Amino acid sequence: MMLQTNKMELDILIANAEDGYKHLQQMSRKDRAELMYSIASSIEALGDELIQTAHEETNLPLARLNGEKARTIHQWRLYADVTASGVLLDARIDYGEGKNDIRKYNVGLGPVVVFGASNFPFAFSTAGGDTASAIGAGCSVIYKEHSAHPRTSRIMAKAIYDGLKAFGAPNEIFGYASGNSHDVGQSLVANPKIKAVAFTGSFQGGMALFKIGANRPEPIPVFAEMGSLNPVIAMPEFLQSNTTNFAKEYIASLTMGCGQFCTNPGILFLLKNEVSENLKQLIKQEFGSVEVGHMLHEGIRKSYDKSLDLLNSTVVANVVGSTAESRDLPIAVVYSVNATDFLKFKHLQEEVFGPCGVIVECDSISQMEDIISNLAGQLTITFAATKQDIQQNLTLVDLVKNKCGRLLFNGMPTGVEVVYAMQHGGVFPSSTDSRFTSVGPDAMKRFLRPISFQNWPDTLLPLELQNSNPSRIERIENNKRILP
Amino acid sequence: MMLQTNKMELDILIANAEDGYKHLQQMSRKDRAELMYSIASSIEALGDELIQTAHEETNLPLARLNGEKARTIHQWRLYADVTASGVLLDARIDYGEGKNDIRKYNVGLGPVVVFGASNFPFAFSTAGGDTASAIGAGCSVIYKEHSAHPRTSRIMAKAIYDGLKAFGAPNEIFGYASGNSHDVGQSLVANPKIKAVAFTGSFQGGMALFKIGANRPEPIPVFAEMGSLNPVIAMPEFLQSNTTNFAKEYIASLTMGCGQFCTNPGILFLLKNEVSENLKQLIKQEFGSVEVGHMLHEGIRKSYDKSLDLLNSTVVANVVGSTAESRDLPIAVVYSVNATDFLKFKHLQEEVFGPCGVIVECDSISQMEDIISNLAGQLTITFAATKQDIQQNLTLVDLVKNKCGRLLFNGMPTGVEVVYAMQHGGVFPSSTDSRFTSVGPDAMKRFLRPISFQNWPDTLLPLELQNSNPSRIERIENNKRILP
Repeated sequence: MMLQTNKMELDILIANAEDGYKHLQQMSRKDRAELMYSIASSIEALGDELIQTAHEETNLPLARLNGEKARTIHQWRLYADVTASGVLLDARIDYGEGKNDIRKYNVGLGPVVVFGASNFPFAFSTAGGDTASAIGAGCSVIYKEHSAHPRTSRIMAKAIYDGLKAFGAPNEIFGYASGNSHDVGQSLVANPKIKAVAFTGSFQGGMALFKIGANRPEPIPVFAEMGSLNPVIAMPEFLQSNTTNFAKEYIASLTMGCGQFCTNPGILFLLKNEVSENLKQLIKQEFGSVEVGHMLHEGIRKSYDKSLDLLNSTVVANVVGSTAESRDLPIAVVYSVNATDFLKFKHLQEEVFGPCGVIVECDSISQMEDIISNLAGQLTITFAATKQDIQQNLTLVDLVKNKCGRLLFNGMPTGVEVVYAMQHGGVFPSSTDSRFTSVGPDAMKRFLRPISFQNWPDTLLPLELQNSNPSRIERIENNKRILP
Repeated sequence: MMLQTNKMELDILIANAEDGYKHLQQMSRKDRAELMYSIASSIEALGDELIQTAHEETNLPLARLNGEKARTIHQWRLYADVTASGVLLDARIDYGEGKNDIRKYNVGLGPVVVFGASNFPFAFSTAGGDTASAIGAGCSVIYKEHSAHPRTSRIMAKAIYDGLKAFGAPNEIFGYASGNSHDVGQSLVANPKIKAVAFTGSFQGGMALFKIGANRPEPIPVFAEMGSLNPVIAMPEFLQSNTTNFAKEYIASLTMGCGQFCTNPGILFLLKNEVSENLKQLIKQEFGSVEVGHMLHEGIRKSYDKSLDLLNSTVVANVVGSTAESRDLPIAVVYSVNATDFLKFKHLQEEVFGPCGVIVECDSISQMEDIISNLAGQLTITFAATKQDIQQNLTLVDLVKNKCGRLLFNGMPTGVEVVYAMQHGGVFPSSTDSRFTSVGPDAMKRFLRPISFQNWPDTLLPLELQNSNPSRIERIENNKRILP
């Protein structure tokens, strides 16, 4: 049975979220960090039920789910540490003879709506990075459950409530909206009390919410991370001396997690020559040892098969290699097209969510530059290259920089580390706002706004801005960075 | 004769802006800072012609214009210093055993369109804070002239070109679009090559551009600062012992620059009692010594007179005091209404651009809280208060914090300092995005986006992210702030 939050329940959720936000505003930053640690411990204490339920709902392997759980716990603790440090408050203090005393720091925007993602039932869902970063920023959260894993979501929601209770904070800080209907999510985004939205999913879904957020009477930011082709550019010198390894790494990355990562390497650019012919042979061989599992849910599988049908009926796209046909499992497959056809057939530039890659064979680096110039924005772009490949092709590198949020030198784009330096959020249409990341402590920046205090008596200022810096945070004072 | 940029010229402007952006991307940060200094010197060298022309076009007094020119020059130099410091790059570096080496910093978004404002022909126009902050962020600029001061704008544009030339940078970094038609501005905002927009002006104008930016195929941020009522809340203890001084300060602030500041104190909240009656008498007397000049242009004057007609026909609004009727000059005037009527007659909550204030008389602090809860967002809110007034009314203070970008303790909101701690940009509808400021070095944040480099060889990284930190900027390395 699918539960569905009704209108009256939504009104209560919203009112609670407002109360929760007020509660967070009254709470000290250190307490907020402790509260986040409490939630982390509560998630850590979840046992087999969580992993088993998620496995049943998403088909994701147990090892992957255990890893994702650990990452989710790490996110809460890291974001808690950064909340406690006060770095993201951007505290600034200016004063001087004949000048006003002005002091600024960041505060939470207000209640935030978080949408669950199908492909990360923990790390981008109920208690995932969006929820953790919103609470870290001082915002209450209403979570809209993803219909692909409602039971998992509820176990996780219970853990959040346990964490709130253990710390002594009210339930209102976190709200839970259920149901399969788009109406629930859209009503939440349209509600005037909601001040920001975080979403990870399809372009269609993300843009629908973005439009609602932008066209409300009071526009609000909708941070939608909407997927990407994540091009890999195999440069000639590198590819020549690493063909075998590259084929292995590429196929492993393409088929990992059944290709269901936002950072899956959907497109491979290379120069057409004997090396590329060799690579295609190696890729074909590589498929002999590849196994893919079930996809996340039936809807994704149907959509994947439909995309493959389209590719199979595209005469210019040739199958390089694939896994064997199977009644139950999806086929992992790599196609090749030449660069001119890639530009002509626009559907080749659309993300296929699943273990499917397209090799684009170019006649020259300058043709690659031309393609990159016309390419849509991406979460990641990867150079498979030697140093010399880069040094000799700086024009191409500069074009690439303008098209992505994360630029890799070798390796594969799958695998997103939860660190300060991570940028997960790329140039449109990979995300609605290239200025922000949804992974790493900077994800909290999405939910903050500055407020200035002019000529306030020291004792009436927030601790963070008082002269003696009692909460010991870094600040910029009269244009100079002062560490605590 | 009014010149008008035509379609072909717009295409050239856009193509140039792309070239200008590429040029800025190639330029080192230190060079960009020097270029900004060069433009500052070029503006400084402008003589009487600039001031006289601006005076003729805007009716603003010479002293004010000289002050605004100095502020404009200061903006270029301060933003140049901050650009050189690298603080706004938010450089982050993460590495370690078994982890990827990931490094992130901010780069300019791309070509930016800046709209001139009528009330600040220098500081918020051609070479104003928006242009300086965009170039500081590494973005080329296309400036759309304001029809109220085209000759001033062209003198200033010439100074920018002189500054670019003196430094040795190409003209393409700055483009100039002319004409009175909305089409020119709207075409620019809609152009796919434009990546952000800055605007200061009316709510209607700002929202029209915001909607274009949000609903383009690729949405872009439109930072519109759209005015504000800038409420002043005169608290009982303070007002009782400072009635005379407060009346003087309030009327001086209200009528300064003929009330044509975004931060003009349009609404005054107070408790209705003998003190408020006394204040109204003092305000009436104060008008005896007030002089206001001509407004910026005829359109603003007409709109102001129309607003006064509406207020005069609002039976619940009583005139407290005003300057004498004059054939040529606008009337400065203060009205009073009671709190219940203020809530009932919604037009009383709309900004009147000019020297007009409304006193809202409340029965109690709790009625004030109720009004503030229902008030739209503001650039500024000011408490005229003693410490005790604040300490005894923390609920009111908390409500106020959620409604503004800058919160003053005494003084008046007019006067915006160009410092790090300034927040000029408030809660909607005072601006389209409360997360950003249009004044102070942080204004550059509007035009930046992060890019991560994963596992890049040290020598191929931007200087700002190399191990030895050759450009000597502050960075966060493995979660720790490191100063150069």
